Amino acid sequence: MSAAKNAIVLLSGGLDSATTAAVARRDGLRLFALSFDYGQRHRQELKAAECVAASLGVARHVVMKIDLAQFGGSALVGDGDVPKDRSESAMGFGIPITYVPARNTVFLSFALAYAETVTAADIYLGVNAVDYSGYPDCRPEYLAAFERLANLATKASVEGAMQFKIHAPLVQLTKAEIIRLGASLGVDYGLTHSCYDPLPDGKSCGHCDSCQIRLRGFAAAGISDPVSYAS
Amino acid sequence: MSAAKNAIVLLSGGLDSATTAAVARRDGLRLFALSFDYGQRHRQELKAAECVAASLGVARHVVMKIDLAQFGGSALVGDGDVPKDRSESAMGFGIPITYVPARNTVFLSFALAYAETVTAADIYLGVNAVDYSGYPDCRPEYLAAFERLANLATKASVEGAMQFKIHAPLVQLTKAEIIRLGASLGVDYGLTHSCYDPLPDGKSCGHCDSCQIRLRGFAAAGISDPVSYAS
Repeated sequence: MSAAKNAIVLLSGGLDSATTAAVARRDGLRLFALSFDYGQRHRQELKAAECVAASLGVARHVVMKIDLAQFGGSALVGDGDVPKDRSESAMGFGIPITYVPARNTVFLSFALAYAETVTAADIYLGVNAVDYSGYPDCRPEYLAAFERLANLATKASVEGAMQFKIHAPLVQLTKAEIIRLGASLGVDYGLTHSCYDPLPDGKSCGHCDSCQIRLRGFAAAGISDPVSYAS
Repeated sequence: MSAAKNAIVLLSGGLDSATTAAVARRDGLRLFALSFDYGQRHRQELKAAECVAASLGVARHVVMKIDLAQFGGSALVGDGDVPKDRSESAMGFGIPITYVPARNTVFLSFALAYAETVTAADIYLGVNAVDYSGYPDCRPEYLAAFERLANLATKASVEGAMQFKIHAPLVQLTKAEIIRLGASLGVDYGLTHSCYDPLPDGKSCGHCDSCQIRLRGFAAAGISDPVSYAS
């Protein structure tokens, strides 16, 4: 019988969440992974999440299907064109077009339900306030407010059995620091997927904001990116 | 063109949420209703929610399908027997067996995504801290924590365009007071559904906690309940 404590890890299939999961594993926790099928533009993200979960040897991986597009409006998942070859300064201005209303609040609320169900006091997520500083729900003050809510919201916390903690170990790291950390923990970045606009053969485009940030991060870390890019 | 402001109303199909929606309508708001198909034991609740939404003339009614049962564990939706003919004091002790982990947090997070999408600053829900005092996520301090989170979580609030407000107009009312309020606002309680264990013909059992609370409420309000009960 293992004495390891349980933790929830939000797994998107991207580089950040894979690194976060490796940090949770390093912390000696038994991982319960959670991904969302929320109408992402392409399915490769979820496939990557499954491969990352398998590679990390998680205890369980739940893929929760939710349909945020039912709310309509203009800020829909997969709406609009993906901008290409933008400069770092253009990317850094304001809230990104990939913003989805209340996404992290929805994701964290499911993580909390999962956490209470499997008795996991620790919830890990790979948000980062450096590269995408425009997302309001990636900021430390937002995460602190969710942690406070979690401890008022549940039977386990109100009865004193559990004290929930939100872990965002990457929140203040640059992409290069994240990649170095993950590499030191043995993360197989070849399994991860970052591109917003992959080719039909699965290769990454290399030009969307997400590819650009990833490529610059690997270059700055002095590590080669194992993912295939369109030539 | 109407100048009415938009509001989100969580609609379960029960008596409390129907009354809450009528309060929001009285407040002059244009209603966007939200219900959840989360594996409820019986489908009558969702049918009731649709009828209540139609009766109130809502602008839109979204039924969001979510599968909390994927998380497994013992605290599952519809698990276990429904207790019958319990005294008020037995019902009032501790957190009810009908507790679902983080349910209101999940529901409110979707309400927030909906609210930002349709530009609705006001979110109404029919929680009550009197009859079911055991639910941690029905308490005023929980609701205040969610409101605080909402205003840190979204683009609309962070950019100053919207200030979200969580309205729980029934939170301190007794069931009799709720029923008198709803009756004064013209709520058709014959459309609502409360029973945890309805008969195959759709009649309410009259003996589960929810029927007992409802029947005592109507009796105390001096109003007859239009719903059909098993004889």
